[in-house]
Amino acid sequence: MTGIGPEVVAKLLAAPDVTRDADLVVMATEEELAAAAATARVSLPEVETTPPAPVGAYELGTVSQAAGRRALEDLRRALDLHAAGEIDGILFAPLNKSALTLAGMTEHDELRWFANRLGHDGPTSELNVLPDLTTARVTSHVAIREVADAITVGGVVDACRLLEDALRGQGVAEPRLAVCALNPHGGENGKFGTEEIDTIRPGVEKARADGMDVVGPFPADTLFIRAFAGELDGVVTMYHDQGQIALKLKGFDDGVTVQGGLPVPIATPAHGTAHAIVGQGVATVRPTVRALEVVIGLARHARPA
Amino acid sequence: MTGIGPEVVAKLLAAPDVTRDADLVVMATEEELAAAAATARVSLPEVETTPPAPVGAYELGTVSQAAGRRALEDLRRALDLHAAGEIDGILFAPLNKSALTLAGMTEHDELRWFANRLGHDGPTSELNVLPDLTTARVTSHVAIREVADAITVGGVVDACRLLEDALRGQGVAEPRLAVCALNPHGGENGKFGTEEIDTIRPGVEKARADGMDVVGPFPADTLFIRAFAGELDGVVTMYHDQGQIALKLKGFDDGVTVQGGLPVPIATPAHGTAHAIVGQGVATVRPTVRALEVVIGLARHARPA
Repeated sequence: MTGIGPEVVAKLLAAPDVTRDADLVVMATEEELAAAAATARVSLPEVETTPPAPVGAYELGTVSQAAGRRALEDLRRALDLHAAGEIDGILFAPLNKSALTLAGMTEHDELRWFANRLGHDGPTSELNVLPDLTTARVTSHVAIREVADAITVGGVVDACRLLEDALRGQGVAEPRLAVCALNPHGGENGKFGTEEIDTIRPGVEKARADGMDVVGPFPADTLFIRAFAGELDGVVTMYHDQGQIALKLKGFDDGVTVQGGLPVPIATPAHGTAHAIVGQGVATVRPTVRALEVVIGLARHARPA
Repeated sequence: MTGIGPEVVAKLLAAPDVTRDADLVVMATEEELAAAAATARVSLPEVETTPPAPVGAYELGTVSQAAGRRALEDLRRALDLHAAGEIDGILFAPLNKSALTLAGMTEHDELRWFANRLGHDGPTSELNVLPDLTTARVTSHVAIREVADAITVGGVVDACRLLEDALRGQGVAEPRLAVCALNPHGGENGKFGTEEIDTIRPGVEKARADGMDVVGPFPADTLFIRAFAGELDGVVTMYHDQGQIALKLKGFDDGVTVQGGLPVPIATPAHGTAHAIVGQGVATVRPTVRALEVVIGLARHARPA
C-alpha cells in the first residue's frame, strides 16, 4: 500500500476494456481508492470494495511493519473470499518483502506463505510469464550450494506439469517445453556434474512418457536463445538465477509472476513497489493488466464453464 | 582445420587495415592458405607461414582424431615460437573440443591445457570480451555442486585483477568492475547461502584495498542489466552459466574469448567451428578481427614499447 500498487490498480480499474471479463472486488477503502485515482489522474467506475481491518498508520514510500501487516491481512482476506467461493482468483500489487518480514512472515517467499496458509503440500513453482515465454523452476529461493541435491526426477516432472498447465491457462493448446541442464555445457556427459544423467534426463523422459511435449536437458546458455526465438512456449530452470538472468535481460520487469501449483490462481506484476516514483502518477499499468489477464485465464482453465 | 577457421583466417589476412599493426605468422601450408582463400573468395597478400608436422588426413566438416592432433600440434608450435621470443601472442581459430579429446587432450578446457603446457600454476580465468563488456570467472568448467566450495577470497581477488589487466590491455585506463553474488537475491543477508558474507564480499573489499575500482557483490540477475547499460567495463562471475546466459543472449557469438592469466596473450573468436557452413564462404570475419585486436592490445600491455 506504500508503493505504486494503489496507483496501478486505479489505472487498471479505469480501463474498462481490460476489466470487462471479470467481476472485481478491491481490497481497499473508498478513500484509499479515491486517493489512488487522484495520483493516477483517472476517473474510476463504480467498483466493489471490501474494507481492511485496521493495522495502524503507514506512510507512502516507506517500509513499515504496519504496511506489511496490511498487505498480509489483505492477502489472508482474499484467500478467505476464495475459500467462501466468492472469488475465482487473486491479483496482488507488488509487495515489499522486508515489510512482510517485519510483519511476521517467516517463509522465504510469498509462494510458501500462500501454500502454508492453504495447507497445500503439493508441488509448487513460481512461474515467470513474459508475452511469449513462461518459465517454471525446480528450485527457487535456495542456496546454490543446495541446488544439486534438491533436484529430483519428481521435481523435474512436477515443474514440467505446472508449466504445461499454466500455458494451457494462457490459451496455448499444445505447449512446447524444454528443460535446462544444471551444469556448464550440460555437464559434458558427466565430466562436470552428473545431475543431467541421474535426475534431469530421467525427469524429462518421465514427463514425455506422461504425454508432455518436452525436450532436454540442454545447456542453459543457448537454450534461452532458442526459447526467445520462438521455438518454445515454456522453459523449466533448475535454479532461480538461471531463469532470472535471462528473463530480466529480456525485460521481465514488464512480466507477470504466478504462484504456480496452488489451488487458487494467484498472479502479480513482476516489477517491485518502486518507492522512488510513488505519488507521481508515472507508473505503467501494462504489467498489472497482463497479470489480470493471466489470473482470468488460469481461473477459466481451473473451472471450465 | 575442418571448420570455418581457415576461411576466416584468409578473410582476416585479406583485410590489410586490420593486420597492419602486427607481423603475422600463419601456422599452415601455402596450399592450405590457397584453398582457404578460394573458399573465402579473397586475394591474399604475402604472408609468412610455418608448415605443420604431418598428422594424417582429415576432411572438412568432420570431427576426427587427425584434425584434433593437427590443432594441438599447431598450438604447441605456437607456444614454442613464443618461448623462443619470435611471437608476442597467439590468435587461434575455433577448435572442436571432441576432436581435441580424441587427439589426447585430457584437460577440461583449453585454458588448463595451455597452463599445463606452460607450467603455469598462477591464477587463470577464461575472459569473455564483448565490445562494451568483459567478464572473468571465479569458477569455470566445474559442476554446480562444487561451485560454492570453490569460491575463495583469493579467487575473487585474482579474478578481479585478471579482469582489470585485460581491460587495461584493451585500452580502458580505469576499469570499472563489479562482482556477482552467488545465491538468489545475493543470499538475502544469509537466508539463502552465506558465500556473499563469507568469501565474496571480503574478496571485493580486498580488491578495493588493493586499489581496484570494484563494487559488489550484487544479485546477478540485475547486475547484467546495469553492465549492459554502460555502468561497468567488467563483471566477475562466480560460475560459467552465470555469465554465459547473459552474454550469449547479448550476441556473445560475435565476441572474443581470452585465455586470461597466462604468461602468453592468447585469444580466439567465441563462435564455434560451424561445420554446417564450411566451404560456403559465408562465415563472418568480424569476431576474428576483434580477437586479433584483443591479442595485439594484450601483447602491448604485457610488453610496453
